[in-house]
Amino acid sequence: MSQKPSIPKGTRDFGPKEMARRNYIFDIIRNVFMKYGYQQIETPAMENLTTLMGKYGEEGDKLLFRILNSGDFLKNAGDLSNTEPSVLGSRICEKGLRYDLTVPFARYVVQNRNDISFPFKRFQIQPVWRADRPQKGRYREFYQCDIDVIGSNALLNEAELLKVTDEIFKKLNLQISILLNNRKILSGLAGHIGHPDKMIDITVAVDKLDKIGLEKVNEELINKGIPEAAVQKLQPILLLQGSSIEKIQTLRHVLKDSEIGQLGLDELEKVIEYARLLEVESPIEFDLTLARGLNYYTGAIIEVKSNEMAIGSISGGGRYDDLTGIFGLSDVSGVGISFGADRIYDVLEHTGKFPSSAESNVQALILNFGEKEELFGLSILNQLRKAGISAEMYPEAAKLKKQMSYADDKNIGWTIMAGAEEILSGSPTLKNMKTGHQEKISLDKIAAYINASS
Amino acid sequence: MSQKPSIPKGTRDFGPKEMARRNYIFDIIRNVFMKYGYQQIETPAMENLTTLMGKYGEEGDKLLFRILNSGDFLKNAGDLSNTEPSVLGSRICEKGLRYDLTVPFARYVVQNRNDISFPFKRFQIQPVWRADRPQKGRYREFYQCDIDVIGSNALLNEAELLKVTDEIFKKLNLQISILLNNRKILSGLAGHIGHPDKMIDITVAVDKLDKIGLEKVNEELINKGIPEAAVQKLQPILLLQGSSIEKIQTLRHVLKDSEIGQLGLDELEKVIEYARLLEVESPIEFDLTLARGLNYYTGAIIEVKSNEMAIGSISGGGRYDDLTGIFGLSDVSGVGISFGADRIYDVLEHTGKFPSSAESNVQALILNFGEKEELFGLSILNQLRKAGISAEMYPEAAKLKKQMSYADDKNIGWTIMAGAEEILSGSPTLKNMKTGHQEKISLDKIAAYINASS
Repeated sequence: MSQKPSIPKGTRDFGPKEMARRNYIFDIIRNVFMKYGYQQIETPAMENLTTLMGKYGEEGDKLLFRILNSGDFLKNAGDLSNTEPSVLGSRICEKGLRYDLTVPFARYVVQNRNDISFPFKRFQIQPVWRADRPQKGRYREFYQCDIDVIGSNALLNEAELLKVTDEIFKKLNLQISILLNNRKILSGLAGHIGHPDKMIDITVAVDKLDKIGLEKVNEELINKGIPEAAVQKLQPILLLQGSSIEKIQTLRHVLKDSEIGQLGLDELEKVIEYARLLEVESPIEFDLTLARGLNYYTGAIIEVKSNEMAIGSISGGGRYDDLTGIFGLSDVSGVGISFGADRIYDVLEHTGKFPSSAESNVQALILNFGEKEELFGLSILNQLRKAGISAEMYPEAAKLKKQMSYADDKNIGWTIMAGAEEILSGSPTLKNMKTGHQEKISLDKIAAYINASS
Repeated sequence: MSQKPSIPKGTRDFGPKEMARRNYIFDIIRNVFMKYGYQQIETPAMENLTTLMGKYGEEGDKLLFRILNSGDFLKNAGDLSNTEPSVLGSRICEKGLRYDLTVPFARYVVQNRNDISFPFKRFQIQPVWRADRPQKGRYREFYQCDIDVIGSNALLNEAELLKVTDEIFKKLNLQISILLNNRKILSGLAGHIGHPDKMIDITVAVDKLDKIGLEKVNEELINKGIPEAAVQKLQPILLLQGSSIEKIQTLRHVLKDSEIGQLGLDELEKVIEYARLLEVESPIEFDLTLARGLNYYTGAIIEVKSNEMAIGSISGGGRYDDLTGIFGLSDVSGVGISFGADRIYDVLEHTGKFPSSAESNVQALILNFGEKEELFGLSILNQLRKAGISAEMYPEAAKLKKQMSYADDKNIGWTIMAGAEEILSGSPTLKNMKTGHQEKISLDKIAAYINASS
């Protein structure tokens, strides 16, 4: 009869300890987002497949989780014999699970364009699903935390996102570096070497510089049909050294004939200047090799790295010019950034920087010694809760050892013993579960004592 | 090229205003849960169909959203021609979307039984999905907020749930009544009329008393094969009047020969007594007609009604004895209650009881008059944010009317004008967007002024 229960591969349960830690991260992120004037939205887990298909490339289409039409789903599907799986999938499925937060956001904006007051500063914290092959650190269900401003070209928006990032990681007590680039500069470079049509190929190759090295990047560029002379022209730029200001100066010179290149450099400088005015404290580095795979960034490209752990980017985003075009609303520019909650969790764990407040939410456990003592215990419980202290009473008179190990497992701060003797004296015994220190405290002072010691 | 975007029927987008209000509800619920020692868990949206199937009755199986196996899902499906839809569904789908939070919780407990410290007080706030026919107030995706204690038979747990309920609705400023019943009493009644095997039929019929009236209930009981004499014997009980204490006294007498009936009355009295000791202030009514459709409650049955709006139950739950048996872990008793966020939302809206804090999160907007004035504005912005004030600057020098209507739409408390004149005098003009009152405040006093006036 009974089954050995399990969950689908690539998915996770989050138990109380993980949830307390995840909430610590999400609460900080959410509170900073709100403080900076971003508003939350939520979209359904299921979207029409017509909304999702074709938005993530051919590979992305394959990674969509499709939901079987309910009811008699075969009725309108026609003859299915000898049907290709992908075609069959489309015939018997009309809905799919959210693959990211960007496409549903674009869909939301277009659908509600008449009710939205632009510029629209929104954030969204929801899970997404991808039928990726599960592996270490890659899940089929994971949360994304996205923040975007759309309907404004102002570069102040980019700088605000950097400030938000700066404040979130400061509140998380994590050291980060912000890497910044601009797609227009990359575009200028492609023009400079005489192959403006190869910009995507160049940025994809440049993106791999860290991973595969200069030689392989050059090889790849040549394989993409860029003549050796042009690739040679690119070398000094790939090897660019120095501070952000020095790099910008060099490029000002190299790209002196490129209008778009100069514009990119202008934007980059302006964003850095705004960030200074907003008192962003994390270091901002101009990184020309930053060319996130995504095809749709048109201006700023942003990536955030931990200075304390080599784990890849923990946040990233950029400026895009046509998010909503595919849904019929053109000329809406936006800029956004996405925070990687799972990686931030890993960095906090690796560095031991989860605060104790992220460990437990229960301050006191009143031990249970039986029916008579319970009455006294409940009056203490009421007192503590009225004082805003999170407290509970063990629900039955189990063995003391069991009750104490319950308190230990839940990481509860204090246990309160109120047996026959304590009832007589009117002073329960409080035990600090961290230090082991015990003290008798008179009934009316318990809440104040715990509040003062926490 | 462009598509007119839409979302699947029965699903919803939540915009900024709805989200602020929903967060107001969820934050209160979550904080009270934590204060009372409950710990949060989250389970995946997708569960194996083997986990979900057969847990919600035949009707429930049909309402599960199934997820198409990814990749070449037809390969292992065998010959599909002339296959019944339900069978085909099982062959090409191995996963389904969470239908409620109870079954995933049971699965979680069994899977993690060696790591859980019992009694396990958990809460879970996540969406669930049902392929129900959408209609007013019934959605295919909606949040459930469940709180359960499992691994303890103590009746203090029931009373704690009533206290949690009491505190949540007090914090929401909503008047409620708590209805209480006990399955053992219903069981005693079925025995009393000589048809213990008809208990389910009786409770199902009794449950309809409010909706279809006494006559139809009697008809239904007779149709279920209960002789007229036995149905007659049930009449005084169906028509039971008076206070909870009077009803209990009457039933003590009627069920004097029923061991299980007396046990049910003992439990009921004990829960009411514990609730009194825990200072539950909402009225608690013993309601014998309360017999929630679910088959699995074995002790207390709980339902919460709004005293301000006729909307059905806004929370409900009860004691169950074998939640985890189906997954191979028997003899684990539990008691839980579920809060209906959508209905609570409707009551708050209907009664106009959403506080203004649930309306907007932005206190101040700094108007943008151009590049020069921006510098001054940004210094104000920094000052406000350092003082913990949620503030933003309009990102570009748009027309004043546009900026003001942006502030209106976002329900922002204050606008701050810092044009050429204000820069000269060092005193920006603050406008209270609710009252229309304007005042010049010197630069260093703005944060204090806003904090004092909010």
